[in-house]
Amino acid sequence: MIVKESFHIRRTLPFVWFDSLLAVGSATAAYLLIDRGGVHWLALPSLLATVMGTALAILLAFRATTAYQRWWEASTIWAQLTGQSRTLIRVARTITDAKLADPSIDPDTVHLWQRDLANRQAAWAHSLARQLRGQDPDAELARLLPADEASLVLAADNRATVLARLQSQAIFRGYAAGILTGLDNFQMETALAGLSTQQALAERMSTTPIPRPHDYVTRMFVHCYIVVFPFAAISALTSYRWLVIPSALLIALFFRMVERVGASTEEPFANRTQDVPITALATNLERDLLELVDVRERPAKPVPVDGYLW
Amino acid sequence: MIVKESFHIRRTLPFVWFDSLLAVGSATAAYLLIDRGGVHWLALPSLLATVMGTALAILLAFRATTAYQRWWEASTIWAQLTGQSRTLIRVARTITDAKLADPSIDPDTVHLWQRDLANRQAAWAHSLARQLRGQDPDAELARLLPADEASLVLAADNRATVLARLQSQAIFRGYAAGILTGLDNFQMETALAGLSTQQALAERMSTTPIPRPHDYVTRMFVHCYIVVFPFAAISALTSYRWLVIPSALLIALFFRMVERVGASTEEPFANRTQDVPITALATNLERDLLELVDVRERPAKPVPVDGYLW
Amino acid sequence: MIVKESFHIRRTLPFVWFDSLLAVGSATAAYLLIDRGGVHWLALPSLLATVMGTALAILLAFRATTAYQRWWEASTIWAQLTGQSRTLIRVARTITDAKLADPSIDPDTVHLWQRDLANRQAAWAHSLARQLRGQDPDAELARLLPADEASLVLAADNRATVLARLQSQAIFRGYAAGILTGLDNFQMETALAGLSTQQALAERMSTTPIPRPHDYVTRMFVHCYIVVFPFAAISALTSYRWLVIPSALLIALFFRMVERVGASTEEPFANRTQDVPITALATNLERDLLELVDVRERPAKPVPVDGYLW
Amino acid sequence: MIVKESFHIRRTLPFVWFDSLLAVGSATAAYLLIDRGGVHWLALPSLLATVMGTALAILLAFRATTAYQRWWEASTIWAQLTGQSRTLIRVARTITDAKLADPSIDPDTVHLWQRDLANRQAAWAHSLARQLRGQDPDAELARLLPADEASLVLAADNRATVLARLQSQAIFRGYAAGILTGLDNFQMETALAGLSTQQALAERMSTTPIPRPHDYVTRMFVHCYIVVFPFAAISALTSYRWLVIPSALLIALFFRMVERVGASTEEPFANRTQDVPITALATNLERDLLELVDVRERPAKPVPVDGYLW
Amino acid sequence: MIVKESFHIRRTLPFVWFDSLLAVGSATAAYLLIDRGGVHWLALPSLLATVMGTALAILLAFRATTAYQRWWEASTIWAQLTGQSRTLIRVARTITDAKLADPSIDPDTVHLWQRDLANRQAAWAHSLARQLRGQDPDAELARLLPADEASLVLAADNRATVLARLQSQAIFRGYAAGILTGLDNFQMETALAGLSTQQALAERMSTTPIPRPHDYVTRMFVHCYIVVFPFAAISALTSYRWLVIPSALLIALFFRMVERVGASTEEPFANRTQDVPITALATNLERDLLELVDVRERPAKPVPVDGYLW
Repeated sequence: MIVKESFHIRRTLPFVWFDSLLAVGSATAAYLLIDRGGVHWLALPSLLATVMGTALAILLAFRATTAYQRWWEASTIWAQLTGQSRTLIRVARTITDAKLADPSIDPDTVHLWQRDLANRQAAWAHSLARQLRGQDPDAELARLLPADEASLVLAADNRATVLARLQSQAIFRGYAAGILTGLDNFQMETALAGLSTQQALAERMSTTPIPRPHDYVTRMFVHCYIVVFPFAAISALTSYRWLVIPSALLIALFFRMVERVGASTEEPFANRTQDVPITALATNLERDLLELVDVRERPAKPVPVDGYLW
Repeated sequence: MIVKESFHIRRTLPFVWFDSLLAVGSATAAYLLIDRGGVHWLALPSLLATVMGTALAILLAFRATTAYQRWWEASTIWAQLTGQSRTLIRVARTITDAKLADPSIDPDTVHLWQRDLANRQAAWAHSLARQLRGQDPDAELARLLPADEASLVLAADNRATVLARLQSQAIFRGYAAGILTGLDNFQMETALAGLSTQQALAERMSTTPIPRPHDYVTRMFVHCYIVVFPFAAISALTSYRWLVIPSALLIALFFRMVERVGASTEEPFANRTQDVPITALATNLERDLLELVDVRERPAKPVPVDGYLW
Repeated sequence: MIVKESFHIRRTLPFVWFDSLLAVGSATAAYLLIDRGGVHWLALPSLLATVMGTALAILLAFRATTAYQRWWEASTIWAQLTGQSRTLIRVARTITDAKLADPSIDPDTVHLWQRDLANRQAAWAHSLARQLRGQDPDAELARLLPADEASLVLAADNRATVLARLQSQAIFRGYAAGILTGLDNFQMETALAGLSTQQALAERMSTTPIPRPHDYVTRMFVHCYIVVFPFAAISALTSYRWLVIPSALLIALFFRMVERVGASTEEPFANRTQDVPITALATNLERDLLELVDVRERPAKPVPVDGYLW
Repeated sequence: MIVKESFHIRRTLPFVWFDSLLAVGSATAAYLLIDRGGVHWLALPSLLATVMGTALAILLAFRATTAYQRWWEASTIWAQLTGQSRTLIRVARTITDAKLADPSIDPDTVHLWQRDLANRQAAWAHSLARQLRGQDPDAELARLLPADEASLVLAADNRATVLARLQSQAIFRGYAAGILTGLDNFQMETALAGLSTQQALAERMSTTPIPRPHDYVTRMFVHCYIVVFPFAAISALTSYRWLVIPSALLIALFFRMVERVGASTEEPFANRTQDVPITALATNLERDLLELVDVRERPAKPVPVDGYLW
Repeated sequence: MIVKESFHIRRTLPFVWFDSLLAVGSATAAYLLIDRGGVHWLALPSLLATVMGTALAILLAFRATTAYQRWWEASTIWAQLTGQSRTLIRVARTITDAKLADPSIDPDTVHLWQRDLANRQAAWAHSLARQLRGQDPDAELARLLPADEASLVLAADNRATVLARLQSQAIFRGYAAGILTGLDNFQMETALAGLSTQQALAERMSTTPIPRPHDYVTRMFVHCYIVVFPFAAISALTSYRWLVIPSALLIALFFRMVERVGASTEEPFANRTQDVPITALATNLERDLLELVDVRERPAKPVPVDGYLW
């Protein structure tokens, strides 16, 4: 996620150079052919620039709206699974703390069980974040899970699903150890069911891009408009027609930037600077989960680097 | 779902040829009659092209938004039922695993019951996907269900509903076999209730198209605008009026493509290339469900063919 | 719901004749007065046609969006209550089937109870559909309910609410008969609670139209624009000014059709061709519910008549 | 809520007189100064009217959308609490009816308890409706509650919250009286939790208006556009420039009406004619709740008066 | 939150002075160079002002919509957690009141436990509100919590999460004290799970601003349009071209104000006048929670100061 509030022009160049060249090229051609070369019949009606310009602006607004909604939905999904992960560990902690009143229960068993659950939930979040971004979760899994579980999870097709199953199994180990009784698992299973839904929604966001034709048609029409604009605009200039060149450049920058602003946020888990910062959010969640079970050694709070939070 | 990022122009021809011909025909007629034939009274005011162009662009934006929202809702519905299916099988697995501590429980009974449930849930997903796309589910049902259940389901009016009932009945067979006790069915029935809602929402998406008049009126107005445009634009060209022909073609391509981009995604289960890829998603779900119950023989991961994921 | 994909022009005439006449009348008046009669001072600035045309197009797009969203929400509500009705009957069936293992339970009591519940749920859906459309539910109630219940329900103020209460009471009769025990009612009551919410949402849709001023202002402005357009457009035509008449007719058809397309879907339970087809959907639901309890005599699947599904 | 479908012009005058006068005044000034007085330098470019007109139309569409969504959300909130109130009383009725099988339970105790709960729920709805509209609930509370409860509630800061607590306490009195046992309160407490959320959402709607600057800026720009329009439009009229006066009036009526249509629905609980009719809805709910517990004396069904339902 | 309905012009100056100067400067330069200095070749085609103006208006409408939706979502989140906090305390109160029938339960224990829970829930709300606004919660924590808990919470990374854990632990202290039994904690834990989700959504709103490029690109294009407008508009004025200066100023004010209206609400927890008034809402919630447990000494109802509610 981009945290800084202004941008160096050099950062935007990669996104606009092609259309800028297109605009300058087309406008120079229009100027040279029509004004210098006198090929007047090439001038298109300015009506074309107006009608297509309005239609293109509306199309780009649709795209920007759609892209932002995807980005915001991605951030909502992550917030939901943050809240549900904390609920899972809060309930696991307090429900087993209550069992400590029974002298036959060994406090260490309880605390180890609590920390095991919190670590695995953090591993779940890191594993999901890495999977969504197409990265390897080895380091986090090795750090947070027992060795046998880590290798089981690494070998799995769907790591987060298997981790959720391991959480369920750990809950039943709690029953076997006598630190859970009766319907104690109820709230925890409800949280796991919610996490399963959010996981599926996040995976879907990552594997289901905006329909390709939307993207393709929008990009093509921006290019096309940039090429057509000078030929349609030049007849609106009665003299000093080389002004069509800066005008076309302005239009190109404007439409292209709006198109890019839309495109940049429509894949919020693509491992790019405009992402929802799920690596940082997973670390923050790990910190919260460990605090819930009184673990003092927690990873450092992630901070933005060069204005980007990852 | 279209996975590839660019398109061959030949693929878009079937969608635009009619309107392209309409544009060229109408513009040629306008050129020949008004410019060559001197029937000047046929030239309409250019105001008409502006006002109708703006209105049409807004109408097409509404349609594209609506269509995308339907497509995205379809994909959300499938993600929801993916998450809930995994929850159902995760709970079934872990809750009955816990019973293995009791030596009177036969481990094979437990594992068979778990796999039976996972297979049937995969059959449910395949059956729903086939039903939404108007396809036959015979192969999947025969592969995943016992023969008697497969023929019962094939004979049913609403196969997915009957499969959900069979899941419920399998849960009660678990009680009878002593591998479920007390409120063990609670989380599983909650998942089945959620699946029932998502099934109804998916069926609705498939049987409730966008209101026909929306579609009809939009298409008619695109055709109509393409016919009217040359007559309204020609008076804006003072000379070289044959330029109205490429101008009309551009406008036709633009408006028609935007109309098609909208229309292409508005029926997300129509068994077309722009569909949400529910056949592939059902296979992925089957893989996850089988992994949850430790089945090693799983169908292969679906991959896009020629840039299309089905 | 309209199922057919094209429309006879005769079907759209009732919606557009008034505005078509208005356009022809106003344009003829403008032509005769200004062009023939020489009352040049009547020509309004064409700016008026542009500014008002853009504003009206945006207003109509807002209306079409709103109307479609209401229609889609109506269809979502019905899908939700379909899913929850199936859940209710699926749970009722499987939870009582499980009791058949107890030899003291009479299988006939169980099956009668199951079918009674399924019939009453179908009656609930039919009764709600009829109420939403302002129709009489006598026939369905008589067909699906015992005579005493049918007359009780017919006498009620809010028939669906009383039917839901009868479902709750039937559940408790199940307890009295020994075919339900413990928390068996839990999932069924949860389904009934969901159905109660969907019923309230559906009733609200039916009794809360779009705010009248929205409708009134939109209609008035369409009429008004159609009257003003010829006077504002005529000055854009330097010769052959009678062309203002077909131009005005085109504009009138365009704006009026868009306004009508919006209006037609904004009351989705109004017992009109554009409705969500709740009578057919209720019959389909009845078929599913009866299949869930193995009743073979089910009503026929509703099919569209003349391209309309009711 | 406005039920009638057409409006007397006299009813809209209070909303448009100021802007109509502004338009006539400004247009007359423009005509007298520029056309009669020859102060030609006052004529602004017509470009200004086009650009600002388009922008203003888009701004007004945003406002109308927002306002309608608030109104519809308000109506959804009330529908939700209607459904949940019916669920609460349906469950209370049927769960205690089932206890009548026990001969030690006095039927009168049960029926009194049921009616007490239904009356209090109706009081809750009336109290909330009155609070949202800034009205006094004395009459309804006195009619529906025992005297001591009525005075307790009237003295409370948040009457609906205290009434919900009294419902919870009545449920526990049911336990004390032996007409509720075990987990009987579960579904009722779930309904009360849902009602608590809907109450908070409704209170929020009533206390959180649309951000003031949105309203202020929109209103100011409408006034401003109405003043500027004649000066920008007059140069588009080459002769008979007094036509700028009716043109400006048309524009003023159009933009002002659209602005008002938006503003009128954005505060749906403001005790105005455009409100969601919560007083009537609360009475309808009371009728349903009393019918659920077989009370025959119910308030009359509210009917619209002069086309308004309150 | 701004409560007053009109604004002193002095309050809006800080937001518009830069763009106003830009407009006056650019328009003066255009006037002096083109009209006075005769550098006619600087005049851009007016087409540029139309196309860019329309596109910019659509972009600003997208931004205003997005910003308002964020603001409204923030207010919905707070309403949800208000409703769930009241549910938590209502259930805690009534469920333990019911235990007073048992003579072995000390009423004071019950009442102290109830008030402890209500105070801590108020502390949770205040702590979250302060955290969202980047403020210190010391005063509220010291006032509402026992000293040891206050210092524990102050030392925590995520104070609201730790406070929710303390609530869970207090519930289990209720079991230990015999004032809770069986599944009494169920509804309370469900409320706490809901609160956890709303907390995560609120934190996300506060830490996830609108994507920076959206903001940056929008601001840049407003500045850019204001600079370009006079050069594109001046050719539309045939005489008295200094009128381009007030015209440009009008356009600048219009576009800038719309941009600011959007920007002002997009960070609803930023501790600014346009915020959702969460400090006041937390105090109101404290009043409701204390009333639910019959505490008479409650903080005063927050009132707007100078038209602002904080």
